[in-house]
Amino acid sequence: LSAALDARAFLRDKRNGREHPAGAIAEFVARAARREIPDYQVSAWLMAAFLRGLSEGETAALTEAMTRSGRVFDWSAMGAPAADKHSTGGIGDKISLILAPLAACCGVCVPMVSGRGLGHTGGTLDKLESIPGFRTALNADAMCAQLERIGVFMAGQGPELAPADGLLYSLRDVTSTVEFQPFIVSSIVSKKIAEGARTVVYDVKCGSGAFMRTIDEARSLARRLVAATRAMGAASAALITDMSWPIGAAIGNALEVTEALEVLRGSGPVEARELSVTLTAEMMRLANVEPDAARARSRVTTALSSGAALEKFRALVAAQGGEARALDGALHPAPERFEVQARRDGHLAACDGFALGELVVAMGGGRRQASDAIDPRVGVTMLKRRGDLVRRGEAFAIVHAASADETLAARAAACFEITAAPPASHAADLVIERIA
Amino acid sequence: LSAALDARAFLRDKRNGREHPAGAIAEFVARAARREIPDYQVSAWLMAAFLRGLSEGETAALTEAMTRSGRVFDWSAMGAPAADKHSTGGIGDKISLILAPLAACCGVCVPMVSGRGLGHTGGTLDKLESIPGFRTALNADAMCAQLERIGVFMAGQGPELAPADGLLYSLRDVTSTVEFQPFIVSSIVSKKIAEGARTVVYDVKCGSGAFMRTIDEARSLARRLVAATRAMGAASAALITDMSWPIGAAIGNALEVTEALEVLRGSGPVEARELSVTLTAEMMRLANVEPDAARARSRVTTALSSGAALEKFRALVAAQGGEARALDGALHPAPERFEVQARRDGHLAACDGFALGELVVAMGGGRRQASDAIDPRVGVTMLKRRGDLVRRGEAFAIVHAASADETLAARAAACFEITAAPPASHAADLVIERIA
Repeated sequence: LSAALDARAFLRDKRNGREHPAGAIAEFVARAARREIPDYQVSAWLMAAFLRGLSEGETAALTEAMTRSGRVFDWSAMGAPAADKHSTGGIGDKISLILAPLAACCGVCVPMVSGRGLGHTGGTLDKLESIPGFRTALNADAMCAQLERIGVFMAGQGPELAPADGLLYSLRDVTSTVEFQPFIVSSIVSKKIAEGARTVVYDVKCGSGAFMRTIDEARSLARRLVAATRAMGAASAALITDMSWPIGAAIGNALEVTEALEVLRGSGPVEARELSVTLTAEMMRLANVEPDAARARSRVTTALSSGAALEKFRALVAAQGGEARALDGALHPAPERFEVQARRDGHLAACDGFALGELVVAMGGGRRQASDAIDPRVGVTMLKRRGDLVRRGEAFAIVHAASADETLAARAAACFEITAAPPASHAADLVIERIA
Repeated sequence: LSAALDARAFLRDKRNGREHPAGAIAEFVARAARREIPDYQVSAWLMAAFLRGLSEGETAALTEAMTRSGRVFDWSAMGAPAADKHSTGGIGDKISLILAPLAACCGVCVPMVSGRGLGHTGGTLDKLESIPGFRTALNADAMCAQLERIGVFMAGQGPELAPADGLLYSLRDVTSTVEFQPFIVSSIVSKKIAEGARTVVYDVKCGSGAFMRTIDEARSLARRLVAATRAMGAASAALITDMSWPIGAAIGNALEVTEALEVLRGSGPVEARELSVTLTAEMMRLANVEPDAARARSRVTTALSSGAALEKFRALVAAQGGEARALDGALHPAPERFEVQARRDGHLAACDGFALGELVVAMGGGRRQASDAIDPRVGVTMLKRRGDLVRRGEAFAIVHAASADETLAARAAACFEITAAPPASHAADLVIERIA
């Protein structure tokens, strides 16, 4: 690569709608990550790319350059293939907490690098940190040692993995260029490849509680994620799943850890269990650990019913400094609880997931800005499922709050629609479409 | 104005193609000039505006905000109206050197803030600095004193006038967002209004030696300049003038000063003289000093023939520290001279003004980067005019060079086309169109 990349000419090319050669993107990102290209040129390029677009080839080059900006793990000597799952974010999405230990019992190892809550959605790291003592900041040595010993870790990105992603994300955030699929894809995929996953399953959420509201947006993102991951030489597929209703019954950090434990104990809401089993079996199939779908499902359900997955989760918590004893009692019960009552007779039909997520953030369960602290206690638990019949005045959910705010129950109730007719579908299988 | 302008929301609005309210632009520019908005947000906005466009109203708001970012002179107590001329840049354009002292003899005062060479074109400040001792950096007190005493100054922008323009220009330069008419217009007009001109005549160059190659581009820029100037309450008109051939016979810093002196002495090339007279008369008309066009021209030509304009130029040079004696001899003769010879019989028909300007820059007459020094000696003088008949081997121009480079004559010759038939027009009047 030429050491003389002219950043002005690079910007002018994208400004004029030209496609960058892969080598030019590689050099621009590498030099930006080394802080040799000033932020004001990087941010102008982000805006030009947002408005002029990036092709699939440019997205692949961007992903590769971001991956190569830091350490890239190689777990090929591990004995079990390294596999991971990434969700685009939803309401009550605690699947990673179940899937990571579950998959580690089913023939793959799981070097899972996760994120924090974003917008109205929760984040896996925030949920894990509601377990007293749990450390999500692991250095590379600790990641290696833990993956070798128990086959799974769940940690934050840290400064070693894809540092260019950290730089670009911070500039996207302040230049209003966040919601652009090629940037979203390169950010997600570079982290998965850098963590060493050679199989990545994507759970692309679609509906009122997701960032992708329509099936067309979800399908576009799913296709780009799979293409960029394969361009990096890893196996990949995406499931587009329904996010028009919370996953399971619990929304909120500690509440979701408790529900994940229920599923790991072999009980818990059927939708949360079913989605965990489906995604884990998909990973096994793609990683060539168990190509037969029925046998893959059978191995996964056995890992749940035998208690193996629960034991793996306990081992994970212990390895990362968490108090495993805390998992046996009530985890951070909230001081205030309010019943959410039906305002009419009818069927629980629709949920405004965005509004419900924003309500939990407002209660302290998420962040308005990066420096905000999370209150692990707060959230909402559903007493009824989608489609269930309720009577006027009947409680169908509970708000768990930090303080006595009588308005919360009504604000939660306003997130749900109750109709005379039952909703068309309330299938336990949330999978809408598979992209491979 | 709200102190809480959200720069991210401002960027998102332009990214989405929305028109900014004037107040939002005012606040963004004011805060950027105070360095309260980081460069990476300003540069992303520049790119978004470049790609999404700025309306006439937004351009006016940007111009006003840039003007208000620094000192704004008020010459209303001067007795003579303050008027100025701005050229968009060409080859051999020494008109400002003639017009400023000439207009100051014709009932207006001229607080002229000028620039340096840009790209392939020369700059008034660089030309003036070929006069030994001439100071182009004047502080506000010096500008005031000189305008009161002799009715004219010619100086650089300095840090006091439109400092936001300095910031935005430096970011445009490094983000490839220079050639966008709303930015060009706000940069030019904010300086003219800040210097206190209440009448501004624009000389919008069009042709091979100009930044605007087509009449459509030139017309668009001319209309925007006039509209933005009037939006700031000043009188304005624009002349679109021909730049498909150098103005006059001299190209190069000291050579152009010498030619300007010839015009001020009442001789010199007819095109340079005619354009100077036309633009000065236009200023007088717009400033309401002499509404009758014929009488305005008559006053201007009298100021030339009487020697008044030459005396004013000498006073200007003396006031700004220049050696007036240097004007009487040969100013910086170049050590090497090469004849540019016709390669065939025919008429001098066309000139690639861009290539000719680039050749002069390459010889040291302009800058490749801001830190380059100018060699005032170098340039080209024409021995023949457009349309003149030449014989094969006949010299039609002279290259003035710093060192013995035998290739220069051929490179200069290659900038000119010689045809069997005479060119359609070689009018001495360069004005193509008037926009008012």
